[in-house]
Amino acid sequence: MRNLLFTISYDGTAYHGWQVQENAPTVQQTVQDALEIICGTRDNITGCSRTDSGVHAEEFCFNMRTECPLECGVFARALDANLPRDIAVRGCREVDFDFHARYDCKEKEYTYKVWNSPEKNPFIDKYSLHHPYPLDVPFLDAQAKQFTGTHDFSAFCASGSSVEDKVRTVYSFDVERKDKLVEFRIRANGYLYNMVRIAVGTLIDISAGKIPADSIPGIISSLDRERAGQTAKAKGLFLSKVIY
Amino acid sequence: MRNLLFTISYDGTAYHGWQVQENAPTVQQTVQDALEIICGTRDNITGCSRTDSGVHAEEFCFNMRTECPLECGVFARALDANLPRDIAVRGCREVDFDFHARYDCKEKEYTYKVWNSPEKNPFIDKYSLHHPYPLDVPFLDAQAKQFTGTHDFSAFCASGSSVEDKVRTVYSFDVERKDKLVEFRIRANGYLYNMVRIAVGTLIDISAGKIPADSIPGIISSLDRERAGQTAKAKGLFLSKVIY
Repeated sequence: MRNLLFTISYDGTAYHGWQVQENAPTVQQTVQDALEIICGTRDNITGCSRTDSGVHAEEFCFNMRTECPLECGVFARALDANLPRDIAVRGCREVDFDFHARYDCKEKEYTYKVWNSPEKNPFIDKYSLHHPYPLDVPFLDAQAKQFTGTHDFSAFCASGSSVEDKVRTVYSFDVERKDKLVEFRIRANGYLYNMVRIAVGTLIDISAGKIPADSIPGIISSLDRERAGQTAKAKGLFLSKVIY
Repeated sequence: MRNLLFTISYDGTAYHGWQVQENAPTVQQTVQDALEIICGTRDNITGCSRTDSGVHAEEFCFNMRTECPLECGVFARALDANLPRDIAVRGCREVDFDFHARYDCKEKEYTYKVWNSPEKNPFIDKYSLHHPYPLDVPFLDAQAKQFTGTHDFSAFCASGSSVEDKVRTVYSFDVERKDKLVEFRIRANGYLYNMVRIAVGTLIDISAGKIPADSIPGIISSLDRERAGQTAKAKGLFLSKVIY
């Protein structure tokens, strides 16, 4: 028995997130189906995070305890060949037997992409939010910095979450323009349910004047979801780095 | 009555090409439906080219003779707002009453995109051909140059085409690498049915050694479709410029 850590990327458009669900296609189930073809057994796999329906991953990790003897490079190529075109395998390596893809994760980076132009862009539509009004990126970058530090982020957690400890540490939060694409990039030791989407939605609401500038510290300390802004659409969100 | 020239871009994944067909969604029909909502009448529109099922357009033009009095900028925004997310309006301008989007076109540029890496890329899969083996781009660029000039391109025309005059002038054909993306860019005064896809497929077959290097002039002069290579998949092809 050994423990393998796989890195994949996927287009989440067609999936109801990572986690196996009844009656809905998920990335985990699709990966397990492909692994079963290769190994002949249905081994359990553990993802580094859930991820909502429609969210994408440039980098997503899962580990798998298996008897399958395939060499890592061969295993990665075999898995890639057995997966549909919207899921790609980027690597496979052997890890300690007690390594856990979620608990051992030190830091994750999410990137939220906004297409910021009056004109639609059909080619990036599945991978971004379309925001037709001008975004003041240096201003938004300064506002985003107000998220950094260790805080109880209850105000940025969707209701219905069963997580008790809502304290997380945000290491950095940068907003950067790449021509008409504006990228919001956040690094933290962990995230609450919808935390990135609510944080980005709040920044966009600040940009539109719906929420006053420099409100983030007050919203955080209120612990009140009602004071934060909208939940930005899932399709602009990418899990972009997983650090162990 | 006036004559308007619209420029649009579209993701062709969901459409059976431009031209109206019975029982299949096309870009032309989708645009006409949106125009009918705005104008209240169903005016005929003329595209700059057909374009196969699944082919994309970064720039596509059509003209429309209409009584609709809307100012061009307002008309463009109204049309954009009434089109689905995979079709965007880039502009609208008034042209001479006898201007014809197809006959008056002097030159069109097509770009064919190849994702050239052993690893799949889920985010570009709908917009490129995946070719996992190394492509020698300077070599391919030199081969592509052999298409330039005025020739009868019968060998690069899909069978079943009803066009009689198969002489076209290719002004340039360049192959360029942008990291893992290889772009084939061709400019010509006109194209035969599947001409770009067969030309790119032939270059890829030359790269794989299935067709000998420096065969293009002989294949062109043979006028024989059987001597050219495969037809590269539609999903990698973009109409990228239309020049009047």
